[in-house]
Amino acid sequence: MLIAIPVFDAFTALDAIGPYEVLQRLPGADVRFIGHRVGPVRTENGMLAVVADATFAEVPAPDVVVVPGGIGTRALLADELILDWIGTAHATSAWTTSVCTGSLLLAAAGLLDGLEAATHWAARSTLGELGAVPVVDRVVVHRERRIMTAAGVSAGIDMALTLAEALFDTTTAAAMQLMIEYDPRPPFDSGSIEKATPAVVERLAELRAAVKG
Amino acid sequence: MLIAIPVFDAFTALDAIGPYEVLQRLPGADVRFIGHRVGPVRTENGMLAVVADATFAEVPAPDVVVVPGGIGTRALLADELILDWIGTAHATSAWTTSVCTGSLLLAAAGLLDGLEAATHWAARSTLGELGAVPVVDRVVVHRERRIMTAAGVSAGIDMALTLAEALFDTTTAAAMQLMIEYDPRPPFDSGSIEKATPAVVERLAELRAAVKG
Repeated sequence: MLIAIPVFDAFTALDAIGPYEVLQRLPGADVRFIGHRVGPVRTENGMLAVVADATFAEVPAPDVVVVPGGIGTRALLADELILDWIGTAHATSAWTTSVCTGSLLLAAAGLLDGLEAATHWAARSTLGELGAVPVVDRVVVHRERRIMTAAGVSAGIDMALTLAEALFDTTTAAAMQLMIEYDPRPPFDSGSIEKATPAVVERLAELRAAVKG
Repeated sequence: MLIAIPVFDAFTALDAIGPYEVLQRLPGADVRFIGHRVGPVRTENGMLAVVADATFAEVPAPDVVVVPGGIGTRALLADELILDWIGTAHATSAWTTSVCTGSLLLAAAGLLDGLEAATHWAARSTLGELGAVPVVDRVVVHRERRIMTAAGVSAGIDMALTLAEALFDTTTAAAMQLMIEYDPRPPFDSGSIEKATPAVVERLAELRAAVKG
């Protein structure tokens, strides 16, 4: 079971690594991080590099695709190489999935036309402009289309457990949950834009502005 | 605020990347992945490489230390380079923390003697043999010692939010929670050894044995 995870400049690491950690221990799993070229690929802030071990062209027909998000997705909305790869890979994949703003790339590749899909809460309108129907759900599953999309960043872990169940069975997926000890206890309750207080939303806007400046 | 995250052969990626994703957007945060040598470092299965951008010697006095776990910790329990680094870094750090079996390294460095600490559920007895007092808590905070330890893998996200609050304030930490949309909805309830059914525990044992074989 070949699992391909594209990485690209300014991707969000946890979007990719959350699902990787859940999926890598599934029976027969072979996870391949792929990119425009082989070598290190850095996250938004440049503080972390993950290695792409193969190119898109070298992994044309994976069984599972997990597309992460990140601010770098915006530069790829007209990148024929990755969009063509997503379209081609989806033709034969068992599941094509995205985390966070990875769904913008699925939409740009034409996979989400008129379909309900999840994305990071701050990118819902962009997802709509690309032809999908953004919803507030944490994980959206279209079994008949073999497509799953997840909300922002950490939602990829929930999605990967749902994906593990779809690929195998509930017991196997639950075993992966036990392995990563995923019994979450967030110390606050600000994990969605619907729940966060105005003060928290304002603080986040300040912090994001500071990073850009 | 210099945040050092050691990586080493056969580390567990999510142990490191969960906290990285929470901490990297904090005001003034400068996250440095460090290792025995500069260059790619691979996880247990070899399927993922993260780049160490500096050596331990180059980052002797970080403000925050986050030590991930992984099966590779076992080979480091007598590694003077990393254990000395942990001890020296802790002398001046604001917080020294671990995720999963990273606490084995903190214990081997002498930081946890007689202290309650968390680790992956499968490593509790090993942690006890190293002089700490293993507990089932997801996050253990010793404010007076400036030490936090987290349970397995995904618990590092909960710990990092607690750490963000300790470093700044609740609003700032909650803003990080919103950024990573951490409103977890695990599809099953098998995230701890106390909750998992015997069938799930047995399946995990089979899968782990298959990986080793």
